[in-house]
Amino acid sequence: MYISNQHKCFGGFNKSFSEAKFVLFGVPFDSTASYRPGSRFGPAAIREASANIETWSWRNNMDFEDVKIHDVGDISIVHGDCLETIKRIKETVEEIHSYGKIPIMIGGEHTITLGAIRGLRDVAIISFDAHFDMRDEYLSNKLSHACVMRRILEELGNERLIIVGARATYKEEIEYVKENNIFYITSHEINSSSHIDIISKLRDYFKNVNKIYVSIDMDVLDPSNAPGVSNPEPEGISTSILLNILEGICDGRIVGFDVVEISPPYDNGITSVIASKIIYEMCCFITSKSTSS
Amino acid sequence: MYISNQHKCFGGFNKSFSEAKFVLFGVPFDSTASYRPGSRFGPAAIREASANIETWSWRNNMDFEDVKIHDVGDISIVHGDCLETIKRIKETVEEIHSYGKIPIMIGGEHTITLGAIRGLRDVAIISFDAHFDMRDEYLSNKLSHACVMRRILEELGNERLIIVGARATYKEEIEYVKENNIFYITSHEINSSSHIDIISKLRDYFKNVNKIYVSIDMDVLDPSNAPGVSNPEPEGISTSILLNILEGICDGRIVGFDVVEISPPYDNGITSVIASKIIYEMCCFITSKSTSS
Amino acid sequence: MYISNQHKCFGGFNKSFSEAKFVLFGVPFDSTASYRPGSRFGPAAIREASANIETWSWRNNMDFEDVKIHDVGDISIVHGDCLETIKRIKETVEEIHSYGKIPIMIGGEHTITLGAIRGLRDVAIISFDAHFDMRDEYLSNKLSHACVMRRILEELGNERLIIVGARATYKEEIEYVKENNIFYITSHEINSSSHIDIISKLRDYFKNVNKIYVSIDMDVLDPSNAPGVSNPEPEGISTSILLNILEGICDGRIVGFDVVEISPPYDNGITSVIASKIIYEMCCFITSKSTSS
Amino acid sequence: MYISNQHKCFGGFNKSFSEAKFVLFGVPFDSTASYRPGSRFGPAAIREASANIETWSWRNNMDFEDVKIHDVGDISIVHGDCLETIKRIKETVEEIHSYGKIPIMIGGEHTITLGAIRGLRDVAIISFDAHFDMRDEYLSNKLSHACVMRRILEELGNERLIIVGARATYKEEIEYVKENNIFYITSHEINSSSHIDIISKLRDYFKNVNKIYVSIDMDVLDPSNAPGVSNPEPEGISTSILLNILEGICDGRIVGFDVVEISPPYDNGITSVIASKIIYEMCCFITSKSTSS
Amino acid sequence: MYISNQHKCFGGFNKSFSEAKFVLFGVPFDSTASYRPGSRFGPAAIREASANIETWSWRNNMDFEDVKIHDVGDISIVHGDCLETIKRIKETVEEIHSYGKIPIMIGGEHTITLGAIRGLRDVAIISFDAHFDMRDEYLSNKLSHACVMRRILEELGNERLIIVGARATYKEEIEYVKENNIFYITSHEINSSSHIDIISKLRDYFKNVNKIYVSIDMDVLDPSNAPGVSNPEPEGISTSILLNILEGICDGRIVGFDVVEISPPYDNGITSVIASKIIYEMCCFITSKSTSS
Amino acid sequence: MYISNQHKCFGGFNKSFSEAKFVLFGVPFDSTASYRPGSRFGPAAIREASANIETWSWRNNMDFEDVKIHDVGDISIVHGDCLETIKRIKETVEEIHSYGKIPIMIGGEHTITLGAIRGLRDVAIISFDAHFDMRDEYLSNKLSHACVMRRILEELGNERLIIVGARATYKEEIEYVKENNIFYITSHEINSSSHIDIISKLRDYFKNVNKIYVSIDMDVLDPSNAPGVSNPEPEGISTSILLNILEGICDGRIVGFDVVEISPPYDNGITSVIASKIIYEMCCFITSKSTSS
Repeated sequence: MYISNQHKCFGGFNKSFSEAKFVLFGVPFDSTASYRPGSRFGPAAIREASANIETWSWRNNMDFEDVKIHDVGDISIVHGDCLETIKRIKETVEEIHSYGKIPIMIGGEHTITLGAIRGLRDVAIISFDAHFDMRDEYLSNKLSHACVMRRILEELGNERLIIVGARATYKEEIEYVKENNIFYITSHEINSSSHIDIISKLRDYFKNVNKIYVSIDMDVLDPSNAPGVSNPEPEGISTSILLNILEGICDGRIVGFDVVEISPPYDNGITSVIASKIIYEMCCFITSKSTSS
Repeated sequence: MYISNQHKCFGGFNKSFSEAKFVLFGVPFDSTASYRPGSRFGPAAIREASANIETWSWRNNMDFEDVKIHDVGDISIVHGDCLETIKRIKETVEEIHSYGKIPIMIGGEHTITLGAIRGLRDVAIISFDAHFDMRDEYLSNKLSHACVMRRILEELGNERLIIVGARATYKEEIEYVKENNIFYITSHEINSSSHIDIISKLRDYFKNVNKIYVSIDMDVLDPSNAPGVSNPEPEGISTSILLNILEGICDGRIVGFDVVEISPPYDNGITSVIASKIIYEMCCFITSKSTSS
Repeated sequence: MYISNQHKCFGGFNKSFSEAKFVLFGVPFDSTASYRPGSRFGPAAIREASANIETWSWRNNMDFEDVKIHDVGDISIVHGDCLETIKRIKETVEEIHSYGKIPIMIGGEHTITLGAIRGLRDVAIISFDAHFDMRDEYLSNKLSHACVMRRILEELGNERLIIVGARATYKEEIEYVKENNIFYITSHEINSSSHIDIISKLRDYFKNVNKIYVSIDMDVLDPSNAPGVSNPEPEGISTSILLNILEGICDGRIVGFDVVEISPPYDNGITSVIASKIIYEMCCFITSKSTSS
Repeated sequence: MYISNQHKCFGGFNKSFSEAKFVLFGVPFDSTASYRPGSRFGPAAIREASANIETWSWRNNMDFEDVKIHDVGDISIVHGDCLETIKRIKETVEEIHSYGKIPIMIGGEHTITLGAIRGLRDVAIISFDAHFDMRDEYLSNKLSHACVMRRILEELGNERLIIVGARATYKEEIEYVKENNIFYITSHEINSSSHIDIISKLRDYFKNVNKIYVSIDMDVLDPSNAPGVSNPEPEGISTSILLNILEGICDGRIVGFDVVEISPPYDNGITSVIASKIIYEMCCFITSKSTSS
Repeated sequence: MYISNQHKCFGGFNKSFSEAKFVLFGVPFDSTASYRPGSRFGPAAIREASANIETWSWRNNMDFEDVKIHDVGDISIVHGDCLETIKRIKETVEEIHSYGKIPIMIGGEHTITLGAIRGLRDVAIISFDAHFDMRDEYLSNKLSHACVMRRILEELGNERLIIVGARATYKEEIEYVKENNIFYITSHEINSSSHIDIISKLRDYFKNVNKIYVSIDMDVLDPSNAPGVSNPEPEGISTSILLNILEGICDGRIVGFDVVEISPPYDNGITSVIASKIIYEMCCFITSKSTSS
Repeated sequence: MYISNQHKCFGGFNKSFSEAKFVLFGVPFDSTASYRPGSRFGPAAIREASANIETWSWRNNMDFEDVKIHDVGDISIVHGDCLETIKRIKETVEEIHSYGKIPIMIGGEHTITLGAIRGLRDVAIISFDAHFDMRDEYLSNKLSHACVMRRILEELGNERLIIVGARATYKEEIEYVKENNIFYITSHEINSSSHIDIISKLRDYFKNVNKIYVSIDMDVLDPSNAPGVSNPEPEGISTSILLNILEGICDGRIVGFDVVEISPPYDNGITSVIASKIIYEMCCFITSKSTSS
C-alpha cells in the first residue's frame, strides 16, 4: 500500500525512543485561559506546521532531519483539573529525564511549565514571556497561567529564574518583581540593544548554574510575528532576535525546553510555523553544542 | 448625549430587579469541554442576538417587551475550577429563588446545571439533550459536562429526571440508563410522533411533581438548526418541535430554566438566535400561564 | 489566448442586451443594515455561486442556458446615501422596463426594492419576508430596510401588497398590519398547509391585478436553509416550499423581481447558491409560462 | 507516561489489521475540484469528528466499539496527477480485498471512486450523489470529479450502476442519462416517497448482482444537513432518510464503500460529524447482516 | 451574587462621570465604508481587548488603573445618515467639553472626527493616517471617510492641520495638498528619521496653537502591526514609533482624541489590542503631563 | 444606467489592448499545492485589492492611472493537468510578447512561471523566493511548485538564474545549489546589508544579459508582512526592502514579470494588497525607465 502518515508526528518523521536525544510530547491543556482560549489545539497545529516547513538550519549548518528526536504524542490531560494535569506532566518529564533524554513540551497554556520544572527539579529557568506571570492568584485561581512563574519561583528561588522579553504587567506585580530582585529584561531593552549584550547578561547571571530549562511563551514575540497567542501584547521582539538570543544561551546545560501559549483559533498559521522553527533551531543548537564539545 | 447601550443586556432592555419576575444571568464557563470549546462565549453571543430579533410571540399572543425580566450580568466564574464555579452558581440561584423570582441561566457548558439544581433543591428536572450525560466519570473527571445528569440523578433520584431528545450514547451508559429505569424519550421517537403525545407522556410522568426545572442543551436540536454547539450529533429535533413541546410542559410549576452548550466559535450566528428565541418563548409561556391561572 | 471569464456575469454566460428577455443588475448597498451588515457583497457572491451550480430545471423541463438573460453588472451606488441610491435604481429599472424587458435585481438590503417599485409604477407586489418591514421609522431612519414595505404601501395602497412567510414582528407593527388589513401569510400557516392552498390564496387576492413584482428577502427561508442573511429568524419555510409557491404564482404578469438581504460574511456559501437557484427557476417559470401561453 | 493519541485513527481506537473486518484509508486528493476545493482535508476532519461522537447505534442495537475496523492511515497521493493517484488507490483496494476485508475509503474528491472500482472489479455500484457525474469531459479533463460515473459506467456497463439522490444536471447530461437507460432516483422522488419504496426499487434493480460497492458523495444530502461539500445543491435529502435507505440496502453483498466530497474549509464541522456517523452505521449494518445470516 | 461585568466598559472598570478627567464613548458607524466595512464593530472589540491587556505603562511609570476615565457607552448613531450622526457626535463632545473633561472617541469610520472637531471648535488637529482624506467628494459623497480632512480643513484652515504617516494618495489629491501648503509627514520620512526629529517638526509647527485634537486612524500603522483596518496600505509605521511620537506631542494642550477605522471582521484581534494600548498610553501621557506641570 | 464594474479588472480600469504597454492575465491554478492550497483564488483577490488601494507612486513620482495596462482576464486552466496548463500559459505569453507588450502574470502557484519562461525564451530570470524550488521531484511530481526553478534551470542554464531572499531549504537541495554554482542571496544577507549593495550584486551578475524576467513568490516576504502564502517561512524580508530592490533592478531589459503563491484563504487581505502594490510599482518603474531613456 502507498500509505503515508507524515503529519502524525513532529517534523514528519520519528526516530525510535531508544536512539533519541530529544523526546517531544504535547499537552493540549488550556483550562485556565482567561482571554483567548484554544492553546489546547497547539500541539496538533504545531505538528501540522512542522511537517510543512523546510529543515535546513543556516545558523547551525546542519539539517533537522539529522536530529535524533522521538515524538511520543500527547499526554492525556484532564480538562478542568490543573493539579492532576501538572502531576502527569511531572511524571512524564521525570521518566524522560531518567533515560538521559531531553524533554520538549509543546503546549498548551503556560501553567504546564510548572509540571516540567517539578519533573526535572534542581534546575534554573529562562522564561521568554511578554508577561511576568507573577500574580499570587488570578481570578481566584493559584494554578493559573498568570501565576505560573510565581509558583516556580517558590520552588526554585529567585536567583534561578530569568524573565526575558517582559513588557506587560500591572502595579502590584511590578512592585513585587522589583522588591524580590527578580532578574528580567524587557522587550524595550532588547529592541534597543545588541543581542550580543543581552546574551552576555543572561550567560553571566546563570554562570554558576548547571542545568537550565528554557520556556518560550510565544507571546514574547511581537504580535506582528506571532498573532496566534492567548494574550497578545504589542511591542514585542522579532523572531530573528529571539532565535539569535536562543543561539547564544544554548549549551550543554539545557535539560529541557517548552513552547507554549499558541492559540491556533486566533492564528493565521504563522505562529505555529514559527513555533516549529524555534524547536528545529533549539534542537540543532543543542545538538551542535554537545557534538562540538 | 445620545447614548444607547442596547446590546449590554438580554433583549436590549432591563426591568429593575425588584419588579422582575425573571432574573437572568450568564455563566461563561467551559473548562471541561472536550470537543469544541467556546461555550464561555455563549452569554455574550446570546445577549447580542437577543437584542436583534423581533419580540412578538405568536404562540402566546403577547410581546416579550411586556415580560418582567432583569439581567444581572455574568457570574464571575473560576476557569479550571468546576467545584468553586458550581458553588457560586448554587448561591446565586438560591438568592434569586429566595426573592420568589425565576432564575434563567445562560451557559456555558452543561455542568453548570448542577449548580442551579443545588440552589433550588427539591425540584424535578426535564433535560433536553442529545446525550444522557450519565457517565460516572469522563476523561478522569467526575464534574464533567458528560457526567452532569449522573450527578443530578444522585441528588434528585431517578423518578425526578427526564431526558428528552436523547440519541447519542454508548454501550455502558445505555445499559445504566435502562437498568436504573431512567425515563427518556429519543429524538427518533419525537420525530415519528405527534408532539401532543410527547407532551402527554412528559406531563403524565411528572404529574405529582410540584417544582420543575427545565434544562435545554442546545445540541438537542438537529445540527442543521443549531450548528454552534459543543458536541453536535445528527438526527435531532427541529426548533418548532422543541418550542411546541416547551409550550406543552410550561405551567406554574416552572421554577427556573437554563439554555446551555452553545459554542459561538462554531456557530454561524443561528444557534444564538434560536437560544434567544427559546428564552423569549419560555418567558412568555410562563407569564401567560401564571396570568391565566 | 485561452481566456475564460466565466465568473464575471450571472450564470457564467451573457446574452446580448438586445436579445435578452431578462436584464439582471446588482445593488451592493447595505448602509442601513442594523444587525449583520454585508449584503453589499451579495451581488458578487451570487454571481460566483451561479456559475458553479447546474443549470437544468426539473420543474420546467428546460435548461437555464436557454434563458435569454443579460447581466449589466452593478449599479454604482452611494454608500450612506439611501435616497440617491434608490433614485438610481428607479431610473435603471425604468430604462430596462421601457425596452419591454424584465429587470432582475440582486441585493443588497431590502430598502432597494423601493427603487424598483418606483421604476415600474402601477404594480402589485408579493414580498417573501420573515419580517413585515412596516415600521414607520427605524433607528431614526425612514428609509431603512425595516421600513421598506411601509414606504411601498404608501405608494401602492394596501390592496396591492402581500407579505408571505412573515413571522417576526413586534406589538405596534402587528397592530398596524391588522388595522390596515394588510394581507399576509405567516410561515406557521405555510408550514401547516399544502402549498396548493397557499398558491390559491395568493392568486385569488391578486386576481384583478395586471402587473406583479416579486421581492424575495432570503430571510423568509428557515435559517437552516439560508444562514447567510442580515436578520435571521427561526421557524421559516424550506427552499422547496418557496420554489413550489413561486412556481404557482409566476405567470405572464410578472414584470420584475429581486432577491435581497443575503449577507455573505455570515454565510457558508449555501445562501448564495439558493439565491442563484431561485433566480434560475424564476427565469424558467416566466419563460415557460410566456412560451406556453 | 500518560500518552493518549485518540485522534490519530478513525473512531479513536484501532483493531489490528489481521483481526479487522473493515480496513479504512484516507485519500486526501482534490486536484480537479472546480468550485470549492479542500476535500484533501476531508480524511483528517472525519477522523477528528469520529473520535468525538458517541458510538451507540440505535438502528443496529450494537456499539461501534465492537466493530472490527483497522485504520491504515492515508494513501500518499500525487497532487495534480489523477492517473497515478487512481492507480495507487486501485492497488490498495486490491490488496485489502485480497485479504477478504472490506475497504472503506474516505475522500477526497469523487474521482477516487474510480480507483476503488478498478481494485474490486466485477462489482455493481450504488452512488448517492446530487450530480450524475456523467460528463464525458469537464474543463478539458476526462478524469475529473464531474466525469467519474461516466468512466465507471464505461467499465461496469449501465446495468450495474445506480445514482440515488440526483437533482443537479444540465441538458446534454440528462439526455445522455435517459438515452442510455441509466437507473436513477431523484431527490425529489425520495422526498415525496416512503423510504421503504425507494429501498424496494434499489433492491429489485440489483437483485441479480452479487457484489455491491456503495459510494456516498456527501452532496447528496441537503446543504442544511451537509453544508461543507465541494458542490452544494439545494433540495437534497436528509441524514435520517439517507441512513434509512442505507440500512435497507446493506446486506452480505457489500464489498466496499466510500464517503467523499467533504470540503472542511467550507464546513461548520457538521458534515464531518455526519460522515463519521454514516461510516459507523454502515459498519454496524454490514456487521449485523453478516452476523445474523 | 458573584456578578462580574468586566467587559462592559473600557479597561474593565469605570470611574464616575463627575470624578473623571477623560470621558470615552463609542461611535459604531461605518455607513460610507467603501472597501472593508465593519468599523461599526470597533467600539465593542476595543472594549473587549482593553479588559484583557495589562495596565502598566513603562513610558509613564504609572498604571492605567490610576487614570480617571469614565466610559459612557456608545452614541446611538443613525446607519446611513452621516449628517445626523455627525450632529449627535458634535453635541456629545460639546457637552463633555463643557464639563472641562477630555473626550475620547472610539470609531467607527474616520468621518466621525468631523463631529468631534465641530464640538470642540477652535482647535488644531494632528491626524495620523495613511491617507490624506482630502478628496472633495468620494463616490458621489461629500461626507465620506475619504473626504473628512477636506471638510475639517474647510472649518479650521490649513495652518491648523497636520497629517502624519501619509503614504497613500492619488494625483489630484497630492496636487491639492501641495498647492494648499498642507503640512504632512510621510511614513517614508518617519521610517528614515529619528522620532525625535519628527516630534520637533510637529511641536514647531503647532508652537502657537493652544488646543490640540489628535485623531488616530489605525491604518497609519503598517498592516503587519494593524491588519484589521478598513483600508490597509503597505509601508506604514510601527506601533512603537507611533507611541514614541504620541509621547512627544502630548502636553496640556490636548483637548480630545480619537482612535478610528478598526474593522474587527478583518482583524486577528491585534488591531483592537493596539488601539486599547494607544488609549492607555495617551491617557497616561496626558495625565502625567498635567500632573507634572 | 448607473453601471459601475470597477472590481472586474486589475486596478479598476482597463486601457485597450492595442494602446497597452503591459498585458496582465491571471492563472488560477494550484493543483500541486502541498501545504496551504488556495492560490487559485489569487487572481480574483489581487484584482479586488488593486481596485481599493491608492494609485500614487512616491518612488516614481507618477500615478498608476497613467500606466498603460490591459487586463485580459484569467486563462482557462485545467485543474489537475499541469502540463496542459503550462502549455496554455506559454502560448499566451508568446502571443503577448509577439505584440511587443510586457506580460504580467498573477498566480496561482509558482509552477506557472515555467510557462512564462517557455513563452519568452532566451531570457534570464530573477526569482524572489523563500525557497530554492530546486527539487528534482516533489511528492512523485516533476512539475511541482517545489521543482519549478530546477526545470527553468534546465532550460536557461545556471548563469541566467538568480534566487533572491532564499532561506528555506534542505540538505540535498542546498548541496545541489552549491555544487551547481547557482547564484543566490539569502534573506539573512539582505537583512544585514544595505539594499544598495544587494542591487549592485544583482546588476553585476546580469550585466551581460539583455532580457530579464522577474518572478515574485510572495513568500519571499516575511510572514508578518505577507501572511497569506502557500508556504510561509519565518525570517523573510520586508515589503519596503523588496520594493527598493525591485526599483534598483528594473530597467528597459524587463520583458515580463509575475506575482505568485498568494493563498487568499490564509490571508487577512494584506498579502493581496501588497501584491497589488508591487505590480503598481513594477509598472511605474518600467514605465519611468523606458520614458526617461
